[in-house]
Amino acid sequence: MSKKQKVFRPKARKPKGFRDRAGRELLSETRMLARICEVYAAYGFTPLETPAFEYTDALGKFLPDTDRPNQGVFSIEDDDKQWMSLRYDLTAPLARHVAEYYDQSPKPFRRYQVGTVWRNEKPGPGRFREFTQCDADTVGASGPHADAEAIMMLTDAVLAAGIDAKDFVVRVSSRQIMSGLLRHIGIDPDDAERAAGVLRAMDKYDRLGAEGVALLLGPGRKDASGDFTEGAQLAGDQIEAVLAFMACGQVDTQATLKAMASLIGDDETGREGLADLTSIADTLAALGYAPHVRIDPSVVRGLDYYTGPVFEAELTFPVKNDKGEVVQFGSVGSGGRYDGLVERFKGVRVPAVGCSIGVSRLLAALTDRGGEEDEAPLVVVLALEPTQMIDYHLMAREIRAQGMRAEVYLGGSGMRAQLKYADKRGAAAVVIQGDDERSAGQVTVKDLILGAKLSEEIESNAEWRAGQPAQVTVPRTDLVTAVRGTLAFRSLV
Amino acid sequence: MSKKQKVFRPKARKPKGFRDRAGRELLSETRMLARICEVYAAYGFTPLETPAFEYTDALGKFLPDTDRPNQGVFSIEDDDKQWMSLRYDLTAPLARHVAEYYDQSPKPFRRYQVGTVWRNEKPGPGRFREFTQCDADTVGASGPHADAEAIMMLTDAVLAAGIDAKDFVVRVSSRQIMSGLLRHIGIDPDDAERAAGVLRAMDKYDRLGAEGVALLLGPGRKDASGDFTEGAQLAGDQIEAVLAFMACGQVDTQATLKAMASLIGDDETGREGLADLTSIADTLAALGYAPHVRIDPSVVRGLDYYTGPVFEAELTFPVKNDKGEVVQFGSVGSGGRYDGLVERFKGVRVPAVGCSIGVSRLLAALTDRGGEEDEAPLVVVLALEPTQMIDYHLMAREIRAQGMRAEVYLGGSGMRAQLKYADKRGAAAVVIQGDDERSAGQVTVKDLILGAKLSEEIESNAEWRAGQPAQVTVPRTDLVTAVRGTLAFRSLV
Repeated sequence: MSKKQKVFRPKARKPKGFRDRAGRELLSETRMLARICEVYAAYGFTPLETPAFEYTDALGKFLPDTDRPNQGVFSIEDDDKQWMSLRYDLTAPLARHVAEYYDQSPKPFRRYQVGTVWRNEKPGPGRFREFTQCDADTVGASGPHADAEAIMMLTDAVLAAGIDAKDFVVRVSSRQIMSGLLRHIGIDPDDAERAAGVLRAMDKYDRLGAEGVALLLGPGRKDASGDFTEGAQLAGDQIEAVLAFMACGQVDTQATLKAMASLIGDDETGREGLADLTSIADTLAALGYAPHVRIDPSVVRGLDYYTGPVFEAELTFPVKNDKGEVVQFGSVGSGGRYDGLVERFKGVRVPAVGCSIGVSRLLAALTDRGGEEDEAPLVVVLALEPTQMIDYHLMAREIRAQGMRAEVYLGGSGMRAQLKYADKRGAAAVVIQGDDERSAGQVTVKDLILGAKLSEEIESNAEWRAGQPAQVTVPRTDLVTAVRGTLAFRSLV
Repeated sequence: MSKKQKVFRPKARKPKGFRDRAGRELLSETRMLARICEVYAAYGFTPLETPAFEYTDALGKFLPDTDRPNQGVFSIEDDDKQWMSLRYDLTAPLARHVAEYYDQSPKPFRRYQVGTVWRNEKPGPGRFREFTQCDADTVGASGPHADAEAIMMLTDAVLAAGIDAKDFVVRVSSRQIMSGLLRHIGIDPDDAERAAGVLRAMDKYDRLGAEGVALLLGPGRKDASGDFTEGAQLAGDQIEAVLAFMACGQVDTQATLKAMASLIGDDETGREGLADLTSIADTLAALGYAPHVRIDPSVVRGLDYYTGPVFEAELTFPVKNDKGEVVQFGSVGSGGRYDGLVERFKGVRVPAVGCSIGVSRLLAALTDRGGEEDEAPLVVVLALEPTQMIDYHLMAREIRAQGMRAEVYLGGSGMRAQLKYADKRGAAAVVIQGDDERSAGQVTVKDLILGAKLSEEIESNAEWRAGQPAQVTVPRTDLVTAVRGTLAFRSLV
């Protein structure tokens, strides 16, 4: 006598840190990315797609030194016992691609790529483990003119996305100049750990201000929650020099360059960086980008691999989140020069510069400014008589043939539920043909948006029913004209 | 005395079964998918994006019954000890999504999705472990009118992709009718394993013909390599009945439906399936889709989960691969009704129907027909004098401002290498301004495509140099006009 086996019903849920996205948000992102890629293409870049998986050793940062190298990335051991990881950005795969096809590729190699990347990190509110990046890079170009181009292209991309010129600025600085500053104040910039400690502290300038950074450069800092962050243990005069550097940005570009020069002494790397930055500033000014760009020594950029100019596009207006709270946005795009990335594979230094769009932040900014795209208005043809399904399909087809969106209701419910469905779908209009209309050779087009508006305004339900001002009944042959009229009128409401 | 440590240089290579894709191929796919999604949107579907990872138990087919459920899918154990897998299609995640948001969603729920899917299978030539799918599904619609819509939409999608009406046909059959056939010949269609054995054999009809299928339905079949496939052990008259069914398709739809009816007896499920198929055929005919569609009992479709009508879009011309060999293409799109998929989660039967584009096959077909998209023509501005970089940037900017693609050469090489670069990039033209041109206030536009053509035709190099018919020198102020003229002329060559 066997016990009846219980059917296994998995719970329908997503892994933590992952999400479903739909409708307007997704459409806005798709269109925004298409516009940005058009800018990349106009600058002569070609599209590239690399796999989701790379060999873990090729990704570089996360070497398989443990049994399962899952720290920060999602890793899997392949059948041949080699570890693969899901890409955490699009730059490491680019370096692998360039190294793999080094001899065949044109040099410079210019590609853009849009793709999903994954981070195996602790998820939190607004922190996901899967997101989209949208990069363009030039590999094999060493001069400041490639840097200037990357900055111009990032500017054009943010503008093409739909952000007004007055609403963002691209801030530019240089890692070489920072190296110069460090050496000038007695810190060896090639002492990677020590230099990184100073740069990490500098990178907090936007968020913590001079006082916070001073603590991080010096003895360390306790935050509001009581957590203590170790300091870089710089002496007082060193800290002062760093803070003076970070604050020396002026409205006038030439003044900023002069101030930076005075703070780095005659360090050779610093001087080279300054010459490049001056050339970049001149190019940007001559090409008409001065209004969009500011030389700003307080820009650091977190990534270790930058070796020259760095830049980030920052919004100049406060952005609110879903709850209406003003949130710190950080950058909506960034980039810089990194000359060491391909070297890992080839043993030769290959200069490279690129820019990357902060896709979700830029989309949020666009939404905040009301620049979000909507799906084209939808028309739902109600299915009131089961015998007339073919006619309903014909109506939908006629409407679609004129470039509008239309669908036949395909569920099994009555008129009331069908109207509710259309509402839930955000439909602009419904097409109604019941028994009566059909006998009279007519069809009714009901404007759901105007209808909803009017029903708020009209108090008496009776009055509303009598007026029915948001719908028209026309001969069946005039269906498409009536639908077009309804959708056109709707855009005036 | 420590031995000098050798620097670790990873080999730049991709995991097996994965690939890089670039340029024209990628652009063609992107545009093809955009056009298909426009069709889906026109039918009232909205975009959805689900994560790459789903909990393994939610994916269904691959339950975590082993320590590492990596059979067929890529799986990873999350920090909370739950197994996640990369999605192997877009339908299983849709079922999870619908079940998770069942109460909030409009019903029917209509979504389209484009996304990467992964299979942890043995890679081979042309067999990859990562590819793109592009689906549209209606969940919560039971009638044959939803099936008819899916077939019309698949047809429209293939047409929108750029395949001529004469070059494909959508073949339609029904799992219910097949069930009727099985019961009629004494096989219980609810005996899943036995029924699957018969359907699997039937599914080989296109490839093996009646003789091969007869062996697979009966004692088994040895293929050319000597491998033996177990047969379904049907008796001779059963095999004959199945083969008669598969071959009963006629040019005339009504004749086919009549022939099918005569072969399934009065089995109730079969009769229901036949009534639905008749309704679908009537709808398709009334909507003008008859020329694109054929009722064909030899269509089976491999997937277990289909429960009603099944269909696939098949090319009607032979397609060649890279090597010029004619290859069997199978379908470029398919779909069907599956009423059991959401049931796994909810315990209630939720009717659903959908279609899916065979993205890589459709793209290959499009390429074969010459329908591939190319990148817009590229203009490379040569960088001959380091002091004139700003001017080169200005030239590129002027050209871009008129809607053409342009880039400044940003490498470090001389004129010869720059022209080689432009060739390698497939550039349409280069802009040349050396010392001489600059002094004269002029600029030269050289047509690379025409130039290459002419240099093949002109035997004497001297004659070629003297003529230089593929380039024009104009005042600097006429640069954009000259470039536009060159690109326009090029399209006439």
